[in-house]
Amino acid sequence: MREFLRATVADESAAIERYRSIRDWTVRLAAPLSPEDCQVQPMPDASPTKWHLAHTTWFFETFLLSPHLPGYRPYHPAFSFLFNSYYNAVGPRVARADRGLITRPGLDEVLAYRAAVDLEVIRRLEALGEDRSSEIDTVLELGLNHEQQHQELIVTDIKATLARNPIRPAYRDDLEVLESPAPPMTWHAFPAGLDQIGQNGIGFAFDNESPRHAVHVEAFELASRPVTVGEYRGFMEDGGYQRAEHWLSDGWACIHSNGWDAPLYWEKINGQWRAFTMGGMRPLVDSEPVVHLSYYEADAFARWAGARLPTEAEWEIAAREEPIVGNFLENEAFHPRPAVPGTGLAQCFGDVWEWTQSPYTAYPGMRAAAGALGEYNAKFMCNQIVLRGGSCATPASHIRPSYRNFFPPEARWQFSGIRLARS
Amino acid sequence: MREFLRATVADESAAIERYRSIRDWTVRLAAPLSPEDCQVQPMPDASPTKWHLAHTTWFFETFLLSPHLPGYRPYHPAFSFLFNSYYNAVGPRVARADRGLITRPGLDEVLAYRAAVDLEVIRRLEALGEDRSSEIDTVLELGLNHEQQHQELIVTDIKATLARNPIRPAYRDDLEVLESPAPPMTWHAFPAGLDQIGQNGIGFAFDNESPRHAVHVEAFELASRPVTVGEYRGFMEDGGYQRAEHWLSDGWACIHSNGWDAPLYWEKINGQWRAFTMGGMRPLVDSEPVVHLSYYEADAFARWAGARLPTEAEWEIAAREEPIVGNFLENEAFHPRPAVPGTGLAQCFGDVWEWTQSPYTAYPGMRAAAGALGEYNAKFMCNQIVLRGGSCATPASHIRPSYRNFFPPEARWQFSGIRLARS
Amino acid sequence: MREFLRATVADESAAIERYRSIRDWTVRLAAPLSPEDCQVQPMPDASPTKWHLAHTTWFFETFLLSPHLPGYRPYHPAFSFLFNSYYNAVGPRVARADRGLITRPGLDEVLAYRAAVDLEVIRRLEALGEDRSSEIDTVLELGLNHEQQHQELIVTDIKATLARNPIRPAYRDDLEVLESPAPPMTWHAFPAGLDQIGQNGIGFAFDNESPRHAVHVEAFELASRPVTVGEYRGFMEDGGYQRAEHWLSDGWACIHSNGWDAPLYWEKINGQWRAFTMGGMRPLVDSEPVVHLSYYEADAFARWAGARLPTEAEWEIAAREEPIVGNFLENEAFHPRPAVPGTGLAQCFGDVWEWTQSPYTAYPGMRAAAGALGEYNAKFMCNQIVLRGGSCATPASHIRPSYRNFFPPEARWQFSGIRLARS
Amino acid sequence: MREFLRATVADESAAIERYRSIRDWTVRLAAPLSPEDCQVQPMPDASPTKWHLAHTTWFFETFLLSPHLPGYRPYHPAFSFLFNSYYNAVGPRVARADRGLITRPGLDEVLAYRAAVDLEVIRRLEALGEDRSSEIDTVLELGLNHEQQHQELIVTDIKATLARNPIRPAYRDDLEVLESPAPPMTWHAFPAGLDQIGQNGIGFAFDNESPRHAVHVEAFELASRPVTVGEYRGFMEDGGYQRAEHWLSDGWACIHSNGWDAPLYWEKINGQWRAFTMGGMRPLVDSEPVVHLSYYEADAFARWAGARLPTEAEWEIAAREEPIVGNFLENEAFHPRPAVPGTGLAQCFGDVWEWTQSPYTAYPGMRAAAGALGEYNAKFMCNQIVLRGGSCATPASHIRPSYRNFFPPEARWQFSGIRLARS
Repeated sequence: MREFLRATVADESAAIERYRSIRDWTVRLAAPLSPEDCQVQPMPDASPTKWHLAHTTWFFETFLLSPHLPGYRPYHPAFSFLFNSYYNAVGPRVARADRGLITRPGLDEVLAYRAAVDLEVIRRLEALGEDRSSEIDTVLELGLNHEQQHQELIVTDIKATLARNPIRPAYRDDLEVLESPAPPMTWHAFPAGLDQIGQNGIGFAFDNESPRHAVHVEAFELASRPVTVGEYRGFMEDGGYQRAEHWLSDGWACIHSNGWDAPLYWEKINGQWRAFTMGGMRPLVDSEPVVHLSYYEADAFARWAGARLPTEAEWEIAAREEPIVGNFLENEAFHPRPAVPGTGLAQCFGDVWEWTQSPYTAYPGMRAAAGALGEYNAKFMCNQIVLRGGSCATPASHIRPSYRNFFPPEARWQFSGIRLARS
Repeated sequence: MREFLRATVADESAAIERYRSIRDWTVRLAAPLSPEDCQVQPMPDASPTKWHLAHTTWFFETFLLSPHLPGYRPYHPAFSFLFNSYYNAVGPRVARADRGLITRPGLDEVLAYRAAVDLEVIRRLEALGEDRSSEIDTVLELGLNHEQQHQELIVTDIKATLARNPIRPAYRDDLEVLESPAPPMTWHAFPAGLDQIGQNGIGFAFDNESPRHAVHVEAFELASRPVTVGEYRGFMEDGGYQRAEHWLSDGWACIHSNGWDAPLYWEKINGQWRAFTMGGMRPLVDSEPVVHLSYYEADAFARWAGARLPTEAEWEIAAREEPIVGNFLENEAFHPRPAVPGTGLAQCFGDVWEWTQSPYTAYPGMRAAAGALGEYNAKFMCNQIVLRGGSCATPASHIRPSYRNFFPPEARWQFSGIRLARS
Repeated sequence: MREFLRATVADESAAIERYRSIRDWTVRLAAPLSPEDCQVQPMPDASPTKWHLAHTTWFFETFLLSPHLPGYRPYHPAFSFLFNSYYNAVGPRVARADRGLITRPGLDEVLAYRAAVDLEVIRRLEALGEDRSSEIDTVLELGLNHEQQHQELIVTDIKATLARNPIRPAYRDDLEVLESPAPPMTWHAFPAGLDQIGQNGIGFAFDNESPRHAVHVEAFELASRPVTVGEYRGFMEDGGYQRAEHWLSDGWACIHSNGWDAPLYWEKINGQWRAFTMGGMRPLVDSEPVVHLSYYEADAFARWAGARLPTEAEWEIAAREEPIVGNFLENEAFHPRPAVPGTGLAQCFGDVWEWTQSPYTAYPGMRAAAGALGEYNAKFMCNQIVLRGGSCATPASHIRPSYRNFFPPEARWQFSGIRLARS
Repeated sequence: MREFLRATVADESAAIERYRSIRDWTVRLAAPLSPEDCQVQPMPDASPTKWHLAHTTWFFETFLLSPHLPGYRPYHPAFSFLFNSYYNAVGPRVARADRGLITRPGLDEVLAYRAAVDLEVIRRLEALGEDRSSEIDTVLELGLNHEQQHQELIVTDIKATLARNPIRPAYRDDLEVLESPAPPMTWHAFPAGLDQIGQNGIGFAFDNESPRHAVHVEAFELASRPVTVGEYRGFMEDGGYQRAEHWLSDGWACIHSNGWDAPLYWEKINGQWRAFTMGGMRPLVDSEPVVHLSYYEADAFARWAGARLPTEAEWEIAAREEPIVGNFLENEAFHPRPAVPGTGLAQCFGDVWEWTQSPYTAYPGMRAAAGALGEYNAKFMCNQIVLRGGSCATPASHIRPSYRNFFPPEARWQFSGIRLARS
């Protein structure tokens, strides 16, 4: 990885600039929020904004400053305990469901903590100049990618929080809605053969993308764009949520025990479906990609449509031919937008994460990193499904064809949608 | 009730002064807290401080301003929904366990809401002068008593919140601890006979204290003061939590399913018991009344001690002879203090609520008030136990011998303790 | 108690006859059932028939044979563990909810165990002749009353089991249904005054009926008969289950979380209510007393009817004037029947247990028996409500005016109904 | 499939003989059990023996007799409802967790139902002679394989039932224990390459084994035999259950919430581990394969041992070289036995199911059967892990190299063990 890091953070001023820019984006995302908004944990899976702000800072303090800066004294003795997440190797931590109970430190103190750690990190990088060790580069790169993951979670988690407010307040009142029509869905064919997937050695990748390895795929076809709101309404109007034959056994149990009959954030008000968005409650836009679906719903839609979800190998083989452009976090739309006509696979990157049919497993010969950082990904390889391609809440520089996101099949609060495949 | 109200709020300036004083105390209780502290709901039974601040204001707006002030326009259309509590008759409401999710309005807006409603109430009272109707007097008096109940809950609920903070922050850092010895416990005897209990017609009383009615009591004795921390440790050291014979069947199940082996807020740190108080973590003070006990623990202690808990009739007959003085909210100790030597029943009022053995039921011939206000007490007459006497979190003017507090037998977050009785 | 016992079990042959007769009734109740029927536990509160057969035998073995018959060797070393119920003092026991998992011993072996213990008990009583100690008399009497309680539970618990069979099999196919009209409900008045309730010293009574003690009651009226099915349907048709104002707060939560909109065992089939009875599924009979109600439903009906439930003192003062006749277990109707015209309070005894409004508490000065038998009643004095008068599943010789039955307010599988009162 | 079926059930007398033989084995498995044993459902995942006996019969009645025998009248109108399992397409069914509540029909009636259906099936096959349609052959073959699956479940489920009996009765008292030493574990190497897995077209296979398809595997090694009890004790003694670094995040949560610190059925009695087996409680035998492990435990052991679990492709490529011999159901050992020395991979088949690391997914291009039978496998492809090789409870003729068993990662009541792999 070192070669790449040396390339991307080649001179210290570029590295510092990148650090500052990514860290600032996190604070920018919290700017429209009150201390109370930043405090609340709407469900065990989602964390308070304040916690995200603090935890990403704790990451740099714990893995960069403490081990690599001789004589560094932690900012506050309790923070290591308060803002550790799942790193068992780093010691005990607050139960995940209890993060919303940490009223102290307050938002102001957490922002001061961020500023203090940033100052130390930058001072340290400046002092080292070209002499940065590869360990520091590695941690720095990992920390910034980690920060970007939490930027996406800030968006999805605060959406979950605001949705629990009975008055459904908007995150921002100035978000624009596009209602252009979507192009028709067509099929793109790919041949059978032995191929390779996984990180390509160019640029940073997480350990779960390695090693690059051979896979054999049968011939397949992929849809030219994600499924739209209008198409998903067709499924609903055809009794999709009422007909067991479309559903996995677990999925059928899940929609019944949760009482689901529509995507997350949809509400039927006076007979009309409306959806909660980062801009508040809105009428549905039929040409937008449908979003906030569980794997079960994505899978059921695909069966109803006479298709299936792609495997992650199929997805990656197809997507690596597409440019990494799209509706990302930096757009500040915070919602997927209608596809625009074109010749390739539209919206492979950005807009909505695309559920694959692949459970999240280790690539052959995968080695987790040593120590606490090795807990980052491998610990979660059970009962999770891979999603690909990033969303409207993903930073543009964070995504790549080999990127593997993963969530349990019942998760809906991410910006998750559907691209169809068939054999 | 009107006669009394006319007496207590005799001229409008006294009424206004009393309104202002009680309302200001609520805000004073919130002053040491951050917006984040005021936001959190630590468990379904306890409410956020911000919710208490808003709900008590909603009470005056809903029951005083809206019906009695022609042309009054509610401060905000959503607040009636957001800050209703259990009044089914007033319409739908936020689920009790979800009060901590209401991030908007923020604390500042809630304080503004308080100020605006106070202004209207006072303006209204000033305008009416001597012409206040008895309905307004009744609602005013009920609203102020309701406010005082929520003052106590602000204290107990924020204690529960701060205790969930891993760093156990103090509510205030300037709280003094008294460590004077407690006088020995002696027994006071009362004869058998036909007597009367219930509200005595002097001053305000809730509907659950009426009607005054005849009861026959057998001869009994009451302890001269509440059970102390030191005495309760004797029970614990004698295996109190390990011996089934002391416990009600439900109580034995309760301590096992919850893993209880000490009062709420006690923590064993390096082999020493310490307790979380409003002043932070502290060593135990053996001469203080023991506090934060469930009914099950109070009952088990009494059996172990060869005694029992008093009935509410016994308690009231004994306590009405005592002066209403003690360690109340206005002391700002926020914790019970050691009894001082004397001849009567020490600490009948204030310090700790005393669990009786009486389930909470209607007095013979009780009539609940009409409409929404009738839901105030009678709806809860099931699976609750009566406590008497007030605590260190009770406003002094709120308590009286006939006052009936009630909680489920497993509740521990109130300042609840033990006074022994025997036949 | 000894005097009475000497009277009722005056010579040993009468005592033996009574023992044999009561014990045989238990076996008779199990006769229509298969080994599989006797095995199943339909819910944690209800026990398998096989367990009742064994536990009642265990009682005589543990409390009569083992301590009072020198050299007695227990029938099987494991049975003391398997068939203990809640007697903590006797040692560990099978978790209550796991009683249905005890497949061994089988029904045949349990019946053999009964026969063997009966043989020993009778042989012992014969050998003692007139020399029975009062301890043996006490245990014998308690054991037979305990046996009768379990006879009632065999009926209610097997009804719960059969109801869980999708094909709703009848306990017996030969049960007759009476459809005579019920007399109109009228009110009987009773004056205020100081009175006494509790066991009257004539005959056996449980410890919870003692001591007899003074109570003061206000003037009250009682309904001439229990509420009928037809009257209860009036409540339902008037939206009784949909209107919060009739319900205790806990009751409203209870019917919603359980989805209750009718008494237990009622099913709406093709738009018609039918009820599962010991004779199988049947149309409703409007003139029968309504049965299988929780306290919450009884209380809500009473409020809707502009009345209330009686206190247990009121009930006892009224009922002691009535003869102890009625539709009891020995009738083998296993269901309440329409009241017949008369001048007194119809159906005070038998047919349906009548919910009072009195929580189950200790009478003043009550002393629980020493040792394991002291756990019989006093351990349960929390969150339970008193019912009075016995039911169609109660043995006739088991009931008396001072008899206190008790169940949690949500219990519905007993034959529980309503008699109204008003002040 | 038809070709094979014609081969295996070539003339009708062989087909009839095979039908009779497999059906009789099921009854033979139930022979040592009482009606009560056959009634109980020890947990929602396991079914009563009586239910297995009836459900397998229902399968032939529903899919063979009803559609293919003109004029066939179902044996009992309620059985279709009572003994359907998860076939949504066949109509409503008893909730899975409620199977133990079906006391009627009794065991005798269910055995009579089996006999009656068997008679009809055999009469039908005899009448058809060589004229059997391929649909009938398909259903017959599927029904017999289905029956064999339930034979294994009868063993595992009755073991779970007997284990819940506090006296831990043996299923049979005549089961022999072998205590021969196990050979040392060695590694067998397999090269990288493109290969094929899935059903090979010879003989019956389930739809989830198709289509045979290409896979690329990297070079790997497999252990010569399963992990033994002694080796697993080494893991436990090294703090295996106490060290988070060995465990998947879900696994760590699972062992803590369930309080697991040893394989299922192990009990520490007076400081010594013992295990419940079909022969009752027994001391551990260190040379036996360890059994009754969850995937989480198998995975944690593998990490601790510096190895990993095999993928299902690796397992199949290696195992297809081994003869299908071993300790199967017909051995009537009902427990794994020590491996015997040899040159190949010992115990690939029989003894213990071997957890792979492969989530259970559809093979590329898999097509589920049409109608109700299509629900057989594909509905469950979520949150399950593949196991391979069969166990001591699997009929010998039921297993093959391509056979895919699957259970959730927390399941332990199957005879599931570990074979290690490494890259």
